[in-house]
Formats: sequence, structure tokens, C-alpha cells
Amino acid sequence: MEKPTILVVNDDGIFAKGIKTLIEVMVELGNVIVVAPDSPQSGMGHAVTIHHPLRMRKEHFPVPGVEAYSTSGTPVDCVKLAIHEVLKGKPDLLVSGINHGANHSINVIYSGTMSAAVEGAVENIPSIGFSLLDHSADADFEACRSIVKKVASNVLKNGIAKHTCLNVNIPKLPEEEIKGIKICRQAAGYWSEAFERRQDPSGGDYFWMRGKFENPDKGEDTDQWALDNGYVSIVPVQHDLTAHHAMSELNQWDL
Amino acid sequence: MEKPTILVVNDDGIFAKGIKTLIEVMVELGNVIVVAPDSPQSGMGHAVTIHHPLRMRKEHFPVPGVEAYSTSGTPVDCVKLAIHEVLKGKPDLLVSGINHGANHSINVIYSGTMSAAVEGAVENIPSIGFSLLDHSADADFEACRSIVKKVASNVLKNGIAKHTCLNVNIPKLPEEEIKGIKICRQAAGYWSEAFERRQDPSGGDYFWMRGKFENPDKGEDTDQWALDNGYVSIVPVQHDLTAHHAMSELNQWDL
Repeated sequence: MEKPTILVVNDDGIFAKGIKTLIEVMVELGNVIVVAPDSPQSGMGHAVTIHHPLRMRKEHFPVPGVEAYSTSGTPVDCVKLAIHEVLKGKPDLLVSGINHGANHSINVIYSGTMSAAVEGAVENIPSIGFSLLDHSADADFEACRSIVKKVASNVLKNGIAKHTCLNVNIPKLPEEEIKGIKICRQAAGYWSEAFERRQDPSGGDYFWMRGKFENPDKGEDTDQWALDNGYVSIVPVQHDLTAHHAMSELNQWDL
Repeated sequence: MEKPTILVVNDDGIFAKGIKTLIEVMVELGNVIVVAPDSPQSGMGHAVTIHHPLRMRKEHFPVPGVEAYSTSGTPVDCVKLAIHEVLKGKPDLLVSGINHGANHSINVIYSGTMSAAVEGAVENIPSIGFSLLDHSADADFEACRSIVKKVASNVLKNGIAKHTCLNVNIPKLPEEEIKGIKICRQAAGYWSEAFERRQDPSGGDYFWMRGKFENPDKGEDTDQWALDNGYVSIVPVQHDLTAHHAMSELNQWDL
């Protein structure tokens, strides 16, 4: 069998530590093409660039045999450029990450990492977003290697339901302390925000967003529960946002 | 009864024609606060600003009695700033738009207009995104007035299911040709993209994203069908992206 073509994207930028680990694992599984932002794009959600032109540049990537490009766009732009301008077709697998920081629960809607995976799912490419629960730029991704390889191998072997991708979050634990992998639903958590108001040297106000994640959802079938209890969480993700349960009530309105 | 507090946001920027129409209708229903981007933010999806500070400025808005602020942030940033820094609490209603251009079907995930409404739903604020199927800066929003008022009045009267918002799309038709309002599901459409490659004066390549919307979903219960047939579409929208139908299969994997 021919080796699969694997597209690697992320949102922390092409020079982040997490994408390097992801690429090193993927070269064991297939032919790797990297198309990633030239600067960090965390929190970009499903943003696309329509009012500015996009730049793309070939990069020398420090993993042998890997073709890599950086772009001035968002993670979703990277997926679109990869399909239409680099590969001129669809890869067999799309992997995004490994994100420096959690993308479980509601973070899936803010996350550039996951939006790249969702964009893959829109295109019906088997797609996975990987995130490690460690924000730091020099996070230790060693324990992720075997998990990433296991999940990606399963996706290559089994495929995923149509237009669905996987949101994989990995706890910040040494490999031997990780208890296993759980299939979960997205916990109903949210961010409780506050802004820090500061003044510039000319006396003008500006604001930094600060947030605290809250999770009132006590279900033991959630990604939050799995991560809190030492498991890797996998949530299958789709992009039909219709609230079907709300439709019968709306049909009774006087419209 | 005290007049409700209504927060108005958009993604086309505070000086767009669509938000002015929306504000003019909302002042008939309650006390209006506007917090909107200082420049167009179309296609920003659920982006939030975390690596840059945010600016916010009081604006003189040409509708009497309306308090208005522009911000340097995304539509979602505007909602967060409005709640935490302007209102210091939650409004009774959040309306977003009226967007210059369609946000039905898959556009909901790329749309800044709808992300602002989803952010409202996350906060459990009754929220509505309005869009007119006309991209032009000088689109005619007259036919929208009665529809916007009818939908917003119903939401103020009936409330919406918890953590759910409404995605309202209005066809580009004279008022008398609009056949009515339909409650719909999101059509399974997608964008078929291409990039236009150009060269700058120094010979460097850059790309403009171009796209064509495709809809293979023939259901007569979709927003696309309603709009194609002269109806206003309303899709209730939620943000749990879990693909519950995919979970049993994943639980059979060798992980």
C-alpha cells in the first residue's frame, strides 16, 4: 500500500514545539506536508481571511523529508491553501496541533487548532486536533508521542464518521501516569471573563482579556471528567449547529 | 414593566448601514447599547483577542438616545467587553447584524455576526443574529424592519431555549414578496474554494481567497430551501459540537 499523505497544521505557528513533535510522529506513518501560520494564531476560532491577501512561503523544516510552508493566514486559511495550492487535492489525514494548552469543553469553538480540524471535516478529510494541557512554550510533549501515534493509526485504519473530526486532549502527566483514553462528550463549561483595564503613557485606556474556566457539568462522560481523572479525552466533533430540540417550540410562535 | 436593555453588535463595523437599521428598530423595543468593531470583521468566526490589548471608544451614534462604543476587537470581543466593561451585567436581549450578506447553512461557523450571537447564548442571554442576502455596502434594509421587530418581540416575550440563539436570514426581496418566516435546520452546504494567485511589484506571490457556495442538501426543511423559496429562515443554534452519533463506533476502537 502507498504511504498516506498527511497534512499537518496548527495554531501556535510553524516554529512552535508542539507541531515539531506532531511532525516527528507523523513521518513514521506517512508522507508529511506542513502548512502552518507564520505567527501564533491562538483564539482565532474559525476565522478566515477575506479582506487581505495571503502570503505563503516555503520553509526549511528541521525534520528530514518534510515539505513545509508558512502562511500569513489563520489555521483555517492554512487548510484551504494546503488543499488548493500545495497538495492540489485532499490529504488522507489531517492533524492539527499539538496545541500548547487545553481545547476541551467550550474551548473547541474558540480554538484555531480545532477549527483547522473542523475545516478538514467539512472537506470530509479524516481529521484530528491534538492538545496538551500545558500552555508553556517549552511544554514537554514526550508523553504525547505514543498517544498521538495510536489515535492517528486508528483513524488511518478505521476512518471517521462522515464530516466528523476528533478533539484529543492530553493531560499534563508523565506517560506512566496516564490511565488510558476515553471517548467523551464536550463538557458544558464556559469562561468567566474579566478585563484588566490599563492606561497607556498618553492616558488612553486599553484592556487585556483575562478568564477563568468554569465547569458546572458534573457528568462522568465529559472530556473535563476524563482529563481531571488522568485520562486522554477524545470528543468526536461535527459542525451542524442546529438546536433541533428547540424547533418544535419555535414553530408555536406567532411569526 | 421596565424597558428591556438591548445590546447591539455586528461584524461589519459600527458605521455599516445594517447596524443602523437594527438600532433604529431596537429603540422601539428597549434601551439600546451598541458595542461594535471599529472596522469590518467579516469571516472572523469565533475569534477572540488574547495576544493584543483591546481599545474601546465612545462614539456619537446618529440615533437619539443610543449609547455607542467602538472597539478594536472582534465581534466576540465586543460581546465580552459590553457585558464586563460597559453594562457590568447581562442585557435582556442581544442582537447582532444586520449582516451585509448571507449567514445561512455552513456560514454560521465562519460568521462574526453569528459568533457574537453564539457568545450571547453561551452567557445564556436571549440572542439573535440577523443577515440580509445582499453583500453590498448600500444594501436596502427596509424590508428587514418588520421582520426584525417581529422576531425580536417574540424573543422578548417567549424567551429562547437555554444556551440557544437564533440565526435569522432574510432574502433580498421587496417586503410584499416575502412569503413568511420558516423555522429550519442548517443546510449541509459548503464552500468550494479556489485561490487567485497574483504577483506583487517585487515578484512575490500572494493569494486572494475566492469561493462558491455549494449545497447538495435537497431537504425542504433547510434554511437554504426557505431562502430560495422567498421565506425568511430561522435556525436555532447551539454550541455543543459533540457528534454523539459517532461515539459508539469510536468506543469499539483499539485505543
